[in-house]
Amino acid sequence: MSDLFFDDGDGIVNVGIESFIEPIRSKNVPVTDVDWKPYPGVDDELIDGLTELGEHEPKIRDANERAANRLVEARPIWRDIQNARTALDLEGMTLCHAGPPVTWDNMSGPQRGAVIGAIQYEGWADGKEAARIKAASGDVSFVPCHDRSAVGPMAGIISPSMALAVVENEAYGNTAYSNLNEGLGEVLRFGAYTSDVLENLEWMEQELAPVLKQAVAAHDGIDLKLLSSKALQMGDEVHNRNVAGTALLVRELAPTIATLDEDPHRIEKILSFIGNNEHFFLNLSMAACKSATDAAANVPWSTVLTAMARNGTEFGIRISGLGDEWFTTPAKVVDGLYFSDYSKQDASPDIGDSSIAETSGVGGFAMAGSPAITQFVGGHPQEALGYTKQMYEITITENTNYALPPLNFRGTPTGIDLTQVIETGIQPIINTGIAHKEPGIGQIGAGIGRAPRECFLTAMQAYCNAYRNETVPVEVSEQ
Amino acid sequence: MSDLFFDDGDGIVNVGIESFIEPIRSKNVPVTDVDWKPYPGVDDELIDGLTELGEHEPKIRDANERAANRLVEARPIWRDIQNARTALDLEGMTLCHAGPPVTWDNMSGPQRGAVIGAIQYEGWADGKEAARIKAASGDVSFVPCHDRSAVGPMAGIISPSMALAVVENEAYGNTAYSNLNEGLGEVLRFGAYTSDVLENLEWMEQELAPVLKQAVAAHDGIDLKLLSSKALQMGDEVHNRNVAGTALLVRELAPTIATLDEDPHRIEKILSFIGNNEHFFLNLSMAACKSATDAAANVPWSTVLTAMARNGTEFGIRISGLGDEWFTTPAKVVDGLYFSDYSKQDASPDIGDSSIAETSGVGGFAMAGSPAITQFVGGHPQEALGYTKQMYEITITENTNYALPPLNFRGTPTGIDLTQVIETGIQPIINTGIAHKEPGIGQIGAGIGRAPRECFLTAMQAYCNAYRNETVPVEVSEQ
Repeated sequence: MSDLFFDDGDGIVNVGIESFIEPIRSKNVPVTDVDWKPYPGVDDELIDGLTELGEHEPKIRDANERAANRLVEARPIWRDIQNARTALDLEGMTLCHAGPPVTWDNMSGPQRGAVIGAIQYEGWADGKEAARIKAASGDVSFVPCHDRSAVGPMAGIISPSMALAVVENEAYGNTAYSNLNEGLGEVLRFGAYTSDVLENLEWMEQELAPVLKQAVAAHDGIDLKLLSSKALQMGDEVHNRNVAGTALLVRELAPTIATLDEDPHRIEKILSFIGNNEHFFLNLSMAACKSATDAAANVPWSTVLTAMARNGTEFGIRISGLGDEWFTTPAKVVDGLYFSDYSKQDASPDIGDSSIAETSGVGGFAMAGSPAITQFVGGHPQEALGYTKQMYEITITENTNYALPPLNFRGTPTGIDLTQVIETGIQPIINTGIAHKEPGIGQIGAGIGRAPRECFLTAMQAYCNAYRNETVPVEVSEQ
Repeated sequence: MSDLFFDDGDGIVNVGIESFIEPIRSKNVPVTDVDWKPYPGVDDELIDGLTELGEHEPKIRDANERAANRLVEARPIWRDIQNARTALDLEGMTLCHAGPPVTWDNMSGPQRGAVIGAIQYEGWADGKEAARIKAASGDVSFVPCHDRSAVGPMAGIISPSMALAVVENEAYGNTAYSNLNEGLGEVLRFGAYTSDVLENLEWMEQELAPVLKQAVAAHDGIDLKLLSSKALQMGDEVHNRNVAGTALLVRELAPTIATLDEDPHRIEKILSFIGNNEHFFLNLSMAACKSATDAAANVPWSTVLTAMARNGTEFGIRISGLGDEWFTTPAKVVDGLYFSDYSKQDASPDIGDSSIAETSGVGGFAMAGSPAITQFVGGHPQEALGYTKQMYEITITENTNYALPPLNFRGTPTGIDLTQVIETGIQPIINTGIAHKEPGIGQIGAGIGRAPRECFLTAMQAYCNAYRNETVPVEVSEQ
């Protein structure tokens, strides 16, 4: 992997704004500086802005610790299943989508495919052509999942009738949502919209969701932090590998489901559906991560990331001290392992809210604990160790709830610091599925990507502008 | 770990009888020989014996490959639940026990405890004192589990009424058995015999076993090779860590169990019992391993081990080319992590048939894939890698069905070669639970042990005696 920067432990890379504005080469210390170079694209204006903020470094550090601790201390419990219209307050013909805001005109192929499917599924149009016309008509509103405390993998289309997992962060009292995982193969989230896809969604809404709703209530909630912690010791990174998380979930829920007053064959189908879909835990993991990043949002002065999300067109990030503002740049195609018959030429640019995993400190950041995932996303187990070690260079803390056995139970690198990304030039790593660029096809691979540099530069500049007068932006208010 | 011998990849240790009888120092090659020394206890008689056999090295190598391939190619399927009296042909008051043959007079504390419990459970005596008298009376026959194609963890006491898992090795047509795991805490296998222990056994026989019997049949068997393979990619070593194996088993069986015509509350209790006992998969794994080692037994000329087993008094091994003969030495107390209030002074010497795991190439031999187990048995994740790497030095082949992600999916070291153990002085590693030395108490810890040297010397001498005239022992006949 050419862009791998293995931590050699020599402290070449210093951290904090102060260190950035007084570059190592100007200090009278015997530190090797040959490898240090400014982040590509850092200009004089940004250096000036950071210089002005240098004196506030203690305040920024405190804010970042507060934000990162919220990621660590989050306590996500899966409490309920609710329908999206109610849970996300979706009025009329509103669809939620992955990533930063996007219009139909700018929407990526797989996201368009999922929209075409969702419009038919909701009965807002009959047939794919009518659905396409409806989508383009302006009658349908498109809202980022992130704006409604929700996350959706890949296309991330959530329509009003869909059943959502309701995850309460018991440490901070906030709630996050995700849809339920449809399985692999032809599925809406990868942009497919055949009748099989729509029938499966219908089954999930009518059969799966009511049983899960009862089971989760009868079970008094499912502790997703505990399940994730165990899964991380069992080779999952709880983003692209969820074999253990899913099996542990079945182990947890099956006894309760068995006692529900339901048709045994419906129960059998539900337990098989969950058990046979090794990604079922993904969406729950995502909602758990979202409940943590939402708690870490809006901490004045904090440079910690609270979202990385993609819609197949743009890649966007949010910064805790800058509220809900998105900083975006065009999404890139991800290198990875492609299914036979497909190659990088067929791939949609990076897509999905699932990078909330990395934002909260798992996924690619936890790859050291998941050597087996390299068979799915590419690379070598030794590189998986290297990715995690590198991410310690750009994060504020370590989540000891999420201990990685191969690193002698060191916690996952948690709380991506915008400043450290700029300083070190290390782009956050993201494990991801890869969708076909055309609507209606589906998944064609999986890989390991890097968050693109440009949106970090614009976010850093915006941060300097916002805080240069020591004023906290009005829209940022600590919870 | 002072006795760790990390493979430095320089080929210092050569293999095969030929290399042994022509020690490296006599060869005209520039190989470092400073670390080579004879296995402690190798005497002139044994060197003479090995010298005589030197010319047969190709025959021995072929035989070992055949035996080791049988370990690799075994295909264990859990097919049924049967009662032990029928399955193991137990006449009258016969109890099976772990390890090599033993009498009541020589029996270890935990095994005595389990016998006292089993006699009461069978109704052969009323109360623990009466059971002790009955055990000592000579009325009760004691037979090694291994002699009936069975294995039992720790004390390994199997009584006629107990329900056994029936595992068919579909590659070779042989069948192996194990009892069902009782859970942790106060359990018979660690020598406890309270009324709670006996009631739990009763529940397992009357409630659990019939449901599992139906479920396994309705499921058309459970592929234990596949489950073990997955579990090994999820941080289990399928001996002392079976979190993944157990969760995968629940995932597999729960849908089928849900459709059985049974009381939902019984189903709930059964699914909870299995799911909440992270060692439930252990006994199934052991039966799977036994089905492989039995297939590898009785290969003329083979020096591959087909059993390592302990009864708390003696440690015994069997060699493929020497049939059912046991080579024994006193069992030792294992270093490990002890529960609070207990120490090595309280420990029973090494006990249990569960070292069938290591004999067939998993357990301690697969520790590289199980860094998290160090929290249970002691040591450091880096040492876990070292143990597996070292075991490649004394094994014939690698089981690529059992790929270890941290070693870049290298197969587990499989087929312990008696000759290589003698040559290298490397004793096989065994992960194990530790029982209290007194009857009636239970588990007090877990640790990592080494097979004791002495029984390997006597086995090697016996092998030389048996094969020096190129005659295969009459009791050894290839299946």
